Amino acid sequence: LDGLKNFRQWDSLTPGHPEVHHTPGIETTTGPLGQGISTAVGMALAEAQLAEIFNTEDHTLVDHRTYVIASDGDLMEGVAAEAASLAGHLGLGKLICYFDDNKITIDGGTDLSFGEDVGKRFESYGWQIITVEDGEDLAALRTATHEAQRNLTQPTLIMVRTIIGIGSPNKAGKSAAHGSPLGEQEIELTKAHYGWPTDASFLVPADVAEHMGKAVARGQRDQASWQETFEAYASANPEKGAEWSRRMSGQMPEGWDQNLPQFEEGGSLATRKSSAKVLGELMGRLPELVGGSADLAGSNGTKHPQYGTVSRGSYTGQTIHFGVREHGMAAICAGMVLHGGFRPFCATFLVFTDYMRPAIRLAALMKQPVIYIMTHDSIGLGEDGPTHQPVEHLSALRAIPNVHVVRPGDANETREAWLYAMRRTDGPTVLVFTRQGVPTQNAQAVGHNPQKGAYVLAGDDQKAPEAILMASGSEVSIAMAARDMLEAKGTATRVVSVPCMEAFLAQDADWQQAVLPSDVRCRVAVEAATDMSWHRFLGFEGVFIGMKGFGASAPAKVLFEKFGITAEAVAAAANR
Amino acid sequence: LDGLKNFRQWDSLTPGHPEVHHTPGIETTTGPLGQGISTAVGMALAEAQLAEIFNTEDHTLVDHRTYVIASDGDLMEGVAAEAASLAGHLGLGKLICYFDDNKITIDGGTDLSFGEDVGKRFESYGWQIITVEDGEDLAALRTATHEAQRNLTQPTLIMVRTIIGIGSPNKAGKSAAHGSPLGEQEIELTKAHYGWPTDASFLVPADVAEHMGKAVARGQRDQASWQETFEAYASANPEKGAEWSRRMSGQMPEGWDQNLPQFEEGGSLATRKSSAKVLGELMGRLPELVGGSADLAGSNGTKHPQYGTVSRGSYTGQTIHFGVREHGMAAICAGMVLHGGFRPFCATFLVFTDYMRPAIRLAALMKQPVIYIMTHDSIGLGEDGPTHQPVEHLSALRAIPNVHVVRPGDANETREAWLYAMRRTDGPTVLVFTRQGVPTQNAQAVGHNPQKGAYVLAGDDQKAPEAILMASGSEVSIAMAARDMLEAKGTATRVVSVPCMEAFLAQDADWQQAVLPSDVRCRVAVEAATDMSWHRFLGFEGVFIGMKGFGASAPAKVLFEKFGITAEAVAAAANR
Repeated sequence: LDGLKNFRQWDSLTPGHPEVHHTPGIETTTGPLGQGISTAVGMALAEAQLAEIFNTEDHTLVDHRTYVIASDGDLMEGVAAEAASLAGHLGLGKLICYFDDNKITIDGGTDLSFGEDVGKRFESYGWQIITVEDGEDLAALRTATHEAQRNLTQPTLIMVRTIIGIGSPNKAGKSAAHGSPLGEQEIELTKAHYGWPTDASFLVPADVAEHMGKAVARGQRDQASWQETFEAYASANPEKGAEWSRRMSGQMPEGWDQNLPQFEEGGSLATRKSSAKVLGELMGRLPELVGGSADLAGSNGTKHPQYGTVSRGSYTGQTIHFGVREHGMAAICAGMVLHGGFRPFCATFLVFTDYMRPAIRLAALMKQPVIYIMTHDSIGLGEDGPTHQPVEHLSALRAIPNVHVVRPGDANETREAWLYAMRRTDGPTVLVFTRQGVPTQNAQAVGHNPQKGAYVLAGDDQKAPEAILMASGSEVSIAMAARDMLEAKGTATRVVSVPCMEAFLAQDADWQQAVLPSDVRCRVAVEAATDMSWHRFLGFEGVFIGMKGFGASAPAKVLFEKFGITAEAVAAAANR
Repeated sequence: LDGLKNFRQWDSLTPGHPEVHHTPGIETTTGPLGQGISTAVGMALAEAQLAEIFNTEDHTLVDHRTYVIASDGDLMEGVAAEAASLAGHLGLGKLICYFDDNKITIDGGTDLSFGEDVGKRFESYGWQIITVEDGEDLAALRTATHEAQRNLTQPTLIMVRTIIGIGSPNKAGKSAAHGSPLGEQEIELTKAHYGWPTDASFLVPADVAEHMGKAVARGQRDQASWQETFEAYASANPEKGAEWSRRMSGQMPEGWDQNLPQFEEGGSLATRKSSAKVLGELMGRLPELVGGSADLAGSNGTKHPQYGTVSRGSYTGQTIHFGVREHGMAAICAGMVLHGGFRPFCATFLVFTDYMRPAIRLAALMKQPVIYIMTHDSIGLGEDGPTHQPVEHLSALRAIPNVHVVRPGDANETREAWLYAMRRTDGPTVLVFTRQGVPTQNAQAVGHNPQKGAYVLAGDDQKAPEAILMASGSEVSIAMAARDMLEAKGTATRVVSVPCMEAFLAQDADWQQAVLPSDVRCRVAVEAATDMSWHRFLGFEGVFIGMKGFGASAPAKVLFEKFGITAEAVAAAANR
């Protein structure tokens, strides 16, 4: 969070790539290629859903296009392919993308590496294709745009043939005009080519100033007219009007967090299943909670068909079938939350966060509260084997600034994890759930404590113990069993459940000290993952029990034994 | 490495997904969707290059197809789109992909999320498309395969319409036949449908056994015949024959690592530039060193056109233009090394390893020594801003088992980093380089020490110091300047350069103790990145100087100052 404070210092600088919240008019952060068009698909989907929900026969509250300018580099990225394919599948007719087809990449001509028939490819996704032969031909661009606007059932790709660095006598049409400045001399030559005074800097020609001045007035007029529409709408439909204002403000309705599922001690429930229960309940209360899975809805616990499903021409449902497109899915969710009116979630197996990282990182940088539901969170998933078993992912996600990773240890911690994620407004949360059953702990001891990131689950919380056992997720029950062994031999042992390191590190020093007294150096951490993120809590004397490499294909129980992640190992480490 | 030892324990188990090295006949590890087809593109490219280099008019040493079976899930993944597009661009005619078009995903019919015209899409990439209407029609499959084989200038997609779980009376054609077992009763019904004995388990029908038995004999015949060809070839072309054997064995030629560039103390050189020098030298000595960049060749220092460039119909060059396809690039490199005869490298900015992670992880799991050249490694890249500035990536990459991350601190460390990467044979190496200049340190003190992961760069290496300053990459020079300040005030200070944590952790305890004496607790680590991976070396008493969040857009010098990553800050921390 310190980093974020630093970040604000830089608001006065012009970012090197477009960054939302820094420069007026910037609607999303781009730069990493393919992210812009993919985020835009989420914005267009958000518009389609809100239009369907809120517009009435008499009043049109929501009716705007999402415009994208994309380069060949953007279109080469896989994430763009994923998102564009889904946009075509869903028929997002208000999405219009101008392809800046300048035939130049940084390394040279696109013929070095990009031989695709781009139009045909987008046609295969179900897009309308329009070609503009000359990017300087404003009339042709206008005609193309109008044609795109008229098609309400297909997204449109307008392929605009352009010349990079146009007007620069020596660099136009060359890759030299891409990544580096033209240079002083070439700038002068370019100004001369345009008939501009060569010594003027940041020149705004009079006709441009006039044109843009009109844009401001037009914008104000449009906004006033929309405001009028909204007032008429709200007085004709007071409930809908209030709901619109609520959703766009990001406020959740009164009582949304009351009487959520409570789980009794004992029994065994996979946290993905307790998550499904809580999510199902929340979706009923919060229509803005919209999302889905990358083709693992049943496994991820995101299958709640009673709240409807988004499909081509019918956008109101709360479930989106993203297909096997993890990266596009994450970018689309960022677009929905940037649009406003949504709290999107998306889901897959934890190991596949690897596919989503560029979009997760951008959500963190943009401070967008997307929720990622990541199940099958360790070797505990069993027979699927090491390709599906995350071992480094908890550390790797905890490493991303402003991403909070919550891995609850039982069903009640899962409820609290959801509350924590829903209350975050300034960044994304990764919710990490087991495939396999885990016992429900003492609900009293859990309480709302998980929201503080780490807390004393068992043992005297007033008196410093001889040993501290730290754990998250499915390993909390291993730590509890290890504590029984240690206490039986007379060692005063505390179990600290650590569902969220980021939340714990944000607590005041008193809480941190109360939970992890700094003079108790006999510490063992247990997590069915690699150790990197635990060392800060272990110091040189502490011991980590977990994974040292990749997993293997076998039932969960066998794997925990074979990899030595057991209560016996934890107790033995504490004894040592 | 302990993890890898564990890993071997499991060789006797059948993996849940195909894993190379575990089951005979498995040529690559798949499971994470899209990786198989993308890896296959690398295999096909390897075949094309070796065929061009080694075949003569009289002897054909290399002439094989690469066959892929891909699902709709594979084809939905962006990585598959990237790799397939490049395969079409390069005209890899010996790549043949059967698309298992069963219209079923885990969540239900493909109509939920996958409305593409797949054939048209692959046509847009430049592939040949053949359709087989019935996956049970062996004659049609054979005809299609022959047609695919005849086309040597385009990869072929054979779209095979199939029924998932065919023969199962209640689950055929349904998603129930995808992710979970049929169940005992349904298995019996299915066997009954096929007219098989319902109580037989692992039944191999006689005609199948006969057919497969012939395959074994045919394989032996083919291998013997190839061996004959090779012997004739080697006797007619002894140099080429020896070179073939050398390359396929993975042995590097005598003296490959001698007389590499030495850099004199002083001066300032970006490590990406010293890397470019060393790489250029190595490419001249090692024709198997083949690779390129995702459209940043100049920036990454991988522009060595004197060794030729791969293009459609001409595959011998050592440079590949991957286009802006980081993920596909990484998977293709894994395929080349799996094929044999290559030491592939690929390059982009460090921040974009996020796009490549699934393929990096698979290379690590498969123990394939791909080399990733990752430049622009910190806020030191400057004006491009936080979207391009890695802060969490060093920790996030260090977290992946069997990935070694080497971030050299100067030009001579860069040479050693390359030697280290080239000598690795059992896993991938990420080479991390600066954009900005860094001073060259005392070459004597550097020596070959970087290969041990961490070493004493300055200060008495026999006597335990009062303070230890640890650093990697561009921050080594900051630690050196901080040492000057501390020594000037009489504090005996050691600078430990840490180019590779994984290499250091693999050293014996004596070396580790000699470099980082365990009783010296006054330790400061400095790295222009977040702290996670450093805590294990800092303990509770140590201090980390680095990033706490995302970067910003400004010149490198300004950023280091503003984020407090300075010699003054390091010295002050040590004094505290």
